[in-house]
Amino acid sequence: MAKRVPSAAVTAQCREIFRAWGMSTEHARVTAERLEYADLHGVDSHGIALLPLYARLRAEGRINFRPEARIMRDTAVIALIDADAGLGQVAGTRAMLLAMDKARAAGLAAVAVRNSNHFGAAGAYAMLAAEARLVGMAFSAAWDPAIVPTHGAEPRFGTNPLAFAAPAGESPPFCFDVATSTVAIGKLRLAQLHGRPLEPGWALDRTGAVTTDPRVALESRMLTPLGGTPRLSSHKGYGLAALVEILSTMLSGASYCATRDRNLQQLDVGHFFLAIDPTVFRPNGGFEADVAGMLSALRGTRPARPEEPVLAPGDPEARAFADRSVNGIPLPETLMAQVREIASACRAGWLLEGQ
Amino acid sequence: MAKRVPSAAVTAQCREIFRAWGMSTEHARVTAERLEYADLHGVDSHGIALLPLYARLRAEGRINFRPEARIMRDTAVIALIDADAGLGQVAGTRAMLLAMDKARAAGLAAVAVRNSNHFGAAGAYAMLAAEARLVGMAFSAAWDPAIVPTHGAEPRFGTNPLAFAAPAGESPPFCFDVATSTVAIGKLRLAQLHGRPLEPGWALDRTGAVTTDPRVALESRMLTPLGGTPRLSSHKGYGLAALVEILSTMLSGASYCATRDRNLQQLDVGHFFLAIDPTVFRPNGGFEADVAGMLSALRGTRPARPEEPVLAPGDPEARAFADRSVNGIPLPETLMAQVREIASACRAGWLLEGQ
Repeated sequence: MAKRVPSAAVTAQCREIFRAWGMSTEHARVTAERLEYADLHGVDSHGIALLPLYARLRAEGRINFRPEARIMRDTAVIALIDADAGLGQVAGTRAMLLAMDKARAAGLAAVAVRNSNHFGAAGAYAMLAAEARLVGMAFSAAWDPAIVPTHGAEPRFGTNPLAFAAPAGESPPFCFDVATSTVAIGKLRLAQLHGRPLEPGWALDRTGAVTTDPRVALESRMLTPLGGTPRLSSHKGYGLAALVEILSTMLSGASYCATRDRNLQQLDVGHFFLAIDPTVFRPNGGFEADVAGMLSALRGTRPARPEEPVLAPGDPEARAFADRSVNGIPLPETLMAQVREIASACRAGWLLEGQ
Repeated sequence: MAKRVPSAAVTAQCREIFRAWGMSTEHARVTAERLEYADLHGVDSHGIALLPLYARLRAEGRINFRPEARIMRDTAVIALIDADAGLGQVAGTRAMLLAMDKARAAGLAAVAVRNSNHFGAAGAYAMLAAEARLVGMAFSAAWDPAIVPTHGAEPRFGTNPLAFAAPAGESPPFCFDVATSTVAIGKLRLAQLHGRPLEPGWALDRTGAVTTDPRVALESRMLTPLGGTPRLSSHKGYGLAALVEILSTMLSGASYCATRDRNLQQLDVGHFFLAIDPTVFRPNGGFEADVAGMLSALRGTRPARPEEPVLAPGDPEARAFADRSVNGIPLPETLMAQVREIASACRAGWLLEGQ
């Protein structure tokens, strides 16, 4: 059972709660906007559904809701930001916008962030760039190990997402936004909810063996890297998770989840953002036209089964946006109840009903 | 049966043949060096074993052995090179070295290449950067569609490799060098040779259905994107292949394999190279120390089975190097025979025997 709520109300509800948690008006606005991107584009796990996680981190004193981020390094094409333990959306948005400004001037720029937190959907940042007709990339590490290296029996990386977006003229942008695990924890929860076994290759038990039991997998919280099993090249997903870790954590000087000091109050998460202005390579619009042409060719791929057409990366997000921007965001009852409780606890207004 | 031949002889043999094919001394040297990297680091498919492919492309008139590459755009942090239909190793090496020079000066740089050819192992370029204490990334498209989009029944991308390397102080560099298909064509050939079925999820038949018959798969030449099947998130490998295509083909203005003019003599392959100087973010060596620390943590991961320890990305390559730089490159008899024939046909000296 999921009620549809207009996205403006969902975003206003998030803003209200962030304000009640002590955020500045501007930081509350920016953070709610990044969540709104996810809800509007069908990335349900990374929109308003993040509030319970953020409430828990707040209760643990992990998040500074009045951060004063500092730019530690700043050149024509790179910057390093210390996020002062604020939520990742605040510093992440600032970092991506800074990378975009620099890329407009120089053609190419990168901004690294340390001492940050969860930043929501990586795609939200990459799409900021694509909407400004730049190529955007966003990477993030996490504080909570979940991905197990090939042949291992303990996790060594967070789900380490990466996103890449590129403008495509009149077409919706190319958008690619994925965790480097085979699936997200959410898929394990869904399987448990429906009483279905897991696909072999999604998750491992505590000994590092493949398990198809969602209860076992949710207990171990051990996900495989993309590929799933060694025979299906899980070493590639493993390397990809490590690549994201190096860019996010090692370039910024943030903490690596597998070796971080567990007594540290701050989660010290790192991110990395890259922006490229395609017109420095091709001044006459050839880039966007060629991306659009590729997307058309992909959509026109002969399907294996006619009832399941081939989609271009970004199509599912664009479809969700077309639906949800008109019909609202589907909010399951349990989530509604959780958000109501969070709003009530911090004395924020309740805006999700009576629309 | 594979004879071991000193790598200096293997590299000299490649140089001889490239010279006999009309390459300048300098271009022959550079191209042989990139092949040498692959042979020394265990990437057998991308070393001297490429000569039969290059001989075929030469016979078809696809390669210009006296290319005069031109720099079409050149700023402080980007460049675009037209490779004049030369082998990819020539323009690729020049592009990576140029990106490295610019990154040393500015912190970050990218070079795109169009009108190129097969460039060998992507890792060879990324490692040029890592050996110079920079972070390096290399991407390439291909002219020959092989990867089938999720739910599709025809290929739309080459095996679109990407490589990432990072210096790690006294440790061998982090090195990640993969095709974005689940496996390479070589694995299908190996299965056929040994009369073994394919792993379900490696390859598709002409209708887009999973096949485990190596003969069928080698006929269709339809590989799955990393992930293998939709249930194991092949859409992620699909998006990754598209990401590589956008960077390599669309930024440079090269031809996209799925829509290229089949009458074109030139293969017009595109590449993309990125270099980052980590000291612009962290001037005091913290980056290399942290990468080394991560690699140690990965190697120290509790293994699922004690007899199969967890490796860090780059370890297999470093092990192959330690062995092969001392004991030589293993060359199977069939490959020896093929190279002998190629050398004889172009009247190049024969250097692989009598060492």
